[in-house]
Amino acid sequence: MPPPPRGIPVVDDLGLGLQANSGRGVNKDGSFNVRRRGLPRFRFYELYHHLITMGWAPFLGLLLLAFVVTNALFALLYLGIGMEHFTRPGGETLPDRIQDAFFFSAQTLTTVGYGHISPKGTLANTAAAMESLLGLLSFALATGLLYGRFSRPQACLRFSAQAVVATYGPITGFMFRLVNMRSNQLIEVEAAVSLSFEDPGSRQRRFMNLSLERAKINLFPSSWTVVHPIDEASPLQGMTAEDLRRARAEFIVLIKAFDDTFSQTIYARTSYTAEEVRWGARFKPMLFAAADGMTEMDVTQLDALEEPGSAGHG
Amino acid sequence: MPPPPRGIPVVDDLGLGLQANSGRGVNKDGSFNVRRRGLPRFRFYELYHHLITMGWAPFLGLLLLAFVVTNALFALLYLGIGMEHFTRPGGETLPDRIQDAFFFSAQTLTTVGYGHISPKGTLANTAAAMESLLGLLSFALATGLLYGRFSRPQACLRFSAQAVVATYGPITGFMFRLVNMRSNQLIEVEAAVSLSFEDPGSRQRRFMNLSLERAKINLFPSSWTVVHPIDEASPLQGMTAEDLRRARAEFIVLIKAFDDTFSQTIYARTSYTAEEVRWGARFKPMLFAAADGMTEMDVTQLDALEEPGSAGHG
Amino acid sequence: MPPPPRGIPVVDDLGLGLQANSGRGVNKDGSFNVRRRGLPRFRFYELYHHLITMGWAPFLGLLLLAFVVTNALFALLYLGIGMEHFTRPGGETLPDRIQDAFFFSAQTLTTVGYGHISPKGTLANTAAAMESLLGLLSFALATGLLYGRFSRPQACLRFSAQAVVATYGPITGFMFRLVNMRSNQLIEVEAAVSLSFEDPGSRQRRFMNLSLERAKINLFPSSWTVVHPIDEASPLQGMTAEDLRRARAEFIVLIKAFDDTFSQTIYARTSYTAEEVRWGARFKPMLFAAADGMTEMDVTQLDALEEPGSAGHG
Amino acid sequence: MPPPPRGIPVVDDLGLGLQANSGRGVNKDGSFNVRRRGLPRFRFYELYHHLITMGWAPFLGLLLLAFVVTNALFALLYLGIGMEHFTRPGGETLPDRIQDAFFFSAQTLTTVGYGHISPKGTLANTAAAMESLLGLLSFALATGLLYGRFSRPQACLRFSAQAVVATYGPITGFMFRLVNMRSNQLIEVEAAVSLSFEDPGSRQRRFMNLSLERAKINLFPSSWTVVHPIDEASPLQGMTAEDLRRARAEFIVLIKAFDDTFSQTIYARTSYTAEEVRWGARFKPMLFAAADGMTEMDVTQLDALEEPGSAGHG
Repeated sequence: MPPPPRGIPVVDDLGLGLQANSGRGVNKDGSFNVRRRGLPRFRFYELYHHLITMGWAPFLGLLLLAFVVTNALFALLYLGIGMEHFTRPGGETLPDRIQDAFFFSAQTLTTVGYGHISPKGTLANTAAAMESLLGLLSFALATGLLYGRFSRPQACLRFSAQAVVATYGPITGFMFRLVNMRSNQLIEVEAAVSLSFEDPGSRQRRFMNLSLERAKINLFPSSWTVVHPIDEASPLQGMTAEDLRRARAEFIVLIKAFDDTFSQTIYARTSYTAEEVRWGARFKPMLFAAADGMTEMDVTQLDALEEPGSAGHG
Repeated sequence: MPPPPRGIPVVDDLGLGLQANSGRGVNKDGSFNVRRRGLPRFRFYELYHHLITMGWAPFLGLLLLAFVVTNALFALLYLGIGMEHFTRPGGETLPDRIQDAFFFSAQTLTTVGYGHISPKGTLANTAAAMESLLGLLSFALATGLLYGRFSRPQACLRFSAQAVVATYGPITGFMFRLVNMRSNQLIEVEAAVSLSFEDPGSRQRRFMNLSLERAKINLFPSSWTVVHPIDEASPLQGMTAEDLRRARAEFIVLIKAFDDTFSQTIYARTSYTAEEVRWGARFKPMLFAAADGMTEMDVTQLDALEEPGSAGHG
Repeated sequence: MPPPPRGIPVVDDLGLGLQANSGRGVNKDGSFNVRRRGLPRFRFYELYHHLITMGWAPFLGLLLLAFVVTNALFALLYLGIGMEHFTRPGGETLPDRIQDAFFFSAQTLTTVGYGHISPKGTLANTAAAMESLLGLLSFALATGLLYGRFSRPQACLRFSAQAVVATYGPITGFMFRLVNMRSNQLIEVEAAVSLSFEDPGSRQRRFMNLSLERAKINLFPSSWTVVHPIDEASPLQGMTAEDLRRARAEFIVLIKAFDDTFSQTIYARTSYTAEEVRWGARFKPMLFAAADGMTEMDVTQLDALEEPGSAGHG
Repeated sequence: MPPPPRGIPVVDDLGLGLQANSGRGVNKDGSFNVRRRGLPRFRFYELYHHLITMGWAPFLGLLLLAFVVTNALFALLYLGIGMEHFTRPGGETLPDRIQDAFFFSAQTLTTVGYGHISPKGTLANTAAAMESLLGLLSFALATGLLYGRFSRPQACLRFSAQAVVATYGPITGFMFRLVNMRSNQLIEVEAAVSLSFEDPGSRQRRFMNLSLERAKINLFPSSWTVVHPIDEASPLQGMTAEDLRRARAEFIVLIKAFDDTFSQTIYARTSYTAEEVRWGARFKPMLFAAADGMTEMDVTQLDALEEPGSAGHG
C-alpha cells in the first residue's frame, strides 16, 4: 500500500493498532480489541455500571439470590437472638423455628409484615427494624437500577453485514448501509469512517479518515447508505481487493445520533475488514411503495446484494 | 418545475420520497409515512418505549389489568397449595377459599399485609415471599415508568394550520408561525425547512433546503414567524400556487430547541402541502399591549389570516 | 438614538418589544413581561411542570391535602359498603365507625396494614385492594416528583445589582459581573448581551447584539466581569446616560453554562435598565489572598462600587 | 520569563491567579484553590448537592441517624399521647412502654406494620398515619438520592503523576498521558492545556493557552498522550526547567469527554507544577501485544518513565 496522499489527516489516536495485532481492532459489535491489565481487583464504581449493563436474566437472578441470602443471614441472626423473642403460634422443633425465622425475615424485608409472627423484646425488635430499613433501601436501589437499565441510551442500529465497492453515476465508492431497528426517532445522524491498515515498511498500523459524500443527515426514517467516494483524494484510489487484504485493511465506522424520544445522544460502532468488502456488488433496494401510498422499508433486505457479472476489482 | 438552481444543496437523505408515493412524506403531527416490514414480532427493547409513549388511559388500564391477572395467577397457586396452609378465620366453601386466595394475593403483592390471612408452612410461605418480592419489583418498575413518562422531552409547539406566501417590505416570502403552548422556557430555537417535490421527468421526489431569513432565535417568549425569502436564490422564484400543486410540493419543517426547565433538547416536525399554502394572505397580529404594560399574546389568533384582494400567485 | 451602525446584527426576535410596552422586557429574575391569553383552562401537560417548579411549602401542603382527601373519599366508600364487612374490635357508634373507616383507609393507602382492622367479604376486599394499588402508584409518582424537583437544572448565578460604564486601560466599557452561589462547578460559561431601545421615530423597540471582550470562559471558580467595549463599532459610542434613559434602553443578559456536577446545561437571564447603569463607577475587588495561600472571594462585595469624582457621561 | 509572543491568546479568565498566591491554582484532583466567603450559613439548595456528592459511609450513617432520630421523636409523641391508646399485649413498666412506642414507630415508618401493636383512638391513629406518610415520602426521597448518587457523571480518568519535556521525531514537546480507569466508553475526548506563570515585573499571574498537536480524539480505548509541541509559537521555546521553577509555572489541564454508556458529558481537571515536569525523560510504553492477538494496556505503567543520560534542559 502506498503512503497516504499529502493532506489527508492521519488518525493514529485510536490506540488500537500501535502494535501490529493479528486481528481486527474493532469488533462487529463495536467493542475494542484492547484489554486493560493491572486494574485493582474490586472497584466499587464499576458495580453500578455492571448492574446496569448486564443481561436481564443474570440481573434478575442476582436480585433473587440477594433476596434469599439476605433472608438467610437475618434468619441466622433471629435464631441467634432466640425465637422465644417472637410471638409465633406454632411448633417448637428446630425446622419449625428455622422456617419461622426465615419467613419472618422475608415478611420484614419486603415490609409485608403480616404480623402472624412479630418480634418481642429489644433485641428482636431492633434487628427487625434494621431489616425493614435495609429492605426499604434495597428496594430504593432496585428502583433506581431498573429505571437506569430501561432509560440508558441504547442504539439499535443494524449495519449491513458487508460493505461494497461499487460505481454510482460516474464514480466509484465504498458503501455500507444501516437501519434503525427501534421505534424511537433518530435525528441528526452523523457518520465517520476511518481506514486502518498495516504499513508495509514498519509493519505498524496506520489510520486515515475517509471523506464521506454526506457525513450527516437530519432525519432517519428509513435506511441510510453511507458513501466514501473513491476519487483522487481517496487512499483507495487505484487499490484492488487484493491490496486491501494484503494490508489487512479495516474500515472503522462511528455513528452518532440524537434520540428524539429520550433526548439522549447515542453512539454506535462497527468495522469492516477487507474480507467483508464486496467489490462490484450493489445493495438491493429496501424501500417500496405500498398499496396504501405509504413508503415501506423491508429490513430483511438490509444485507441483500446484487452481484453483477464482473466482480473482484475496483 | 425547473431543475434546482446550481449551488442549492439537494437533500435526498430523508428516505421519504425515493418512491413517488401518492401522499405527503411527513404528517401534520410530524410522524413519517414510512413503515418498517420484516421486524421480529416481539422485541423486548420496544416494551419500555411503548410503555413510555402510550396514552395515559391505556397505560393505567394496563397497570390495573396486570394487577388483576397477577393476583389471579397467585390465587390459583395458593389454591393449588391448599388454603389449609393459611391462617384464615372464615368459611370453607369454594367461593370463600377463592376469595381468600385472591385477596391474600392482593394484600401480599401490595405489601399491605393486614395479617387477617397469613401463610403457614414452607410452600405457602415461599410463594408469598416470592409474591411480595415481585410486588416490590413491579412497583419499582412502575415508579421508573411513571417518572420516565413525566420527564421525557415533550415539545408542545403549535404550528399555524396554513403557511402563507406574502410580501414583507420589498420582497416576498414563504412564512409560517409557531407558538410554545407550554409554560417551560424554550431557548436557542432553530428551524430548518426543506422543499420536497416531484421531478416532472423522472416522477421521483427531490428535496431542497430552503434558506431562512433567520434560522435561530435565542429566546422564545411569544411567537416566531419563520420566513423563507423568495429571492433569486430560491427555488420558489417565479413559481405559482398552481406550479406547486402540480409538483405535489411539500414543505417539511424541523424545529430544534432547548427546554430550559428540564435541560433537554426537544424536536418538533410538521409539513405544509401545496394545498396548505395561502398565496397573498398575511398573518394577523398575535401580540397586544395590555393595560398593565405587559405584552399579551393571544394564542387563539395563531391561524388567523388577513386575505387581501389579490391572491393566488407569487 | 441614531440608527445602528451597519454590520451590527439587529435582533428583533425576542418578541418582547414589538409593542412599545411601558416597562422592561426582561425582569431582574429573568422572567419575561409577556403573558399568554386564550390557552385552554386546564392543561394536563402543565401539571408535572407546576408540581416540579412550585415552592416546597405548597408542594408538601398539596401532598398532605391529597392524602387527607383520598382517605376521606375511601372512608366514605367503606362506610357505604358497611363497616360490618370489616373485622374491627371496637365501638359501634357512628363516630367510631367513621374513625375506623378513615384510619383503615390511611393504613391501606400507606400499605402499613397493621391488621387491627381488616376487610371481610368481596366488596370490602376489592375496595381495599384498589386503595392499596392506588397508594403504591401515588407513592411511585411522589418518588418521581421528588427526584424531578431535586435534580432539575438550577443555576444560582447572582448578578451585580447594577452595571457600570467605566474605563479600563485605554478604552471604556459597559460591564457587569456575576458569581456562582452554589458549590457545583460551572464549566464553559457563555454570555450574550442584547441592547433593546425605543426607536425615536417609530416608537417601536429595536434590538441589537453587543460584542463582548470575552464571550466564553472555560472555568468559573470565582467571579466573572462581562465587558462590552464601547469602541467605534458599539452602538453606545458617543452616548450619554441621559440618551439611554430617553431611549428607555434595556440591556438583556443571557448566560449559558454547563453544570459539571449534574451534567446539565443551565441558563440564566437578567436585564439592566438605563437607570441601573452607573456611569464612571467601578467594581470593587472581590478576590483576596488569604493567609493560607488560598484565593478568597468575598461574595458580599458583588454589588460594591467605587465612585470616582467624575461620573455621568461615557 | 519573557512576555508572551504576539498572537497567543492570554487567558486571564480563570480567576485563580489575579493575586500572586503562593501555591498552585488547581490541585492534582482538579479542585480550585479558591474559597468563597460571605455566603449565607444554611443554603437549602446545597443540601441535595451535598447528599449526592458526600462519601458512601457518611451518607449511610446519616440515613441511619435520621431513622433513629425520627423514631425517637415519634416515640416521644406516642408516649405523650399515652400508650393506653395502643393495643399492645405486654408489660406496663416505663421501659416496656418506651420500647413499645419506639418499635411501633419503626414498624410504622417502614410501613412493615406487623400489627402486634396498633393504634386505637383518633390521636394515636392520626399520629401513626402521619408517620407512615412521612415514611413513604422519606423513602421516596432516599430512592431519588440513591439513584442520583449512582447515575451522576463521574469520570475516572487517571493522569500520569508527572509530565515530561521530551523530543519526539525532530522536535521537542511538553507531554503527559491519561487512561480511563472505568469500563464505560469515553468518546470525543477533548483536551485543553493552559500555562499559568508569575509575571516577573508585576508579580501577577498570567495565563496562556498552549496549542496541542491533537486536541480531540474520537475513541479512547486505551491511553492518550497529550502533546504540546515546543516550536517557535510556544511560550516554552528556549525555556529551561529552572526558568519554569522561578516563574512558579503551572500547567492547567482540562479534559472533556462524552460517556457513551450513560449519555453524559464529563469533565476532568488536573495541573502540573514546574516541579512535576521531568525534562528529558520519556514515558515507557503501556500497550503490549498479548498472545491471543488482543492489545493489552498495563495501567500500572502509567507513571513509568525512562530517564536518558542527558536530562534537565529543553
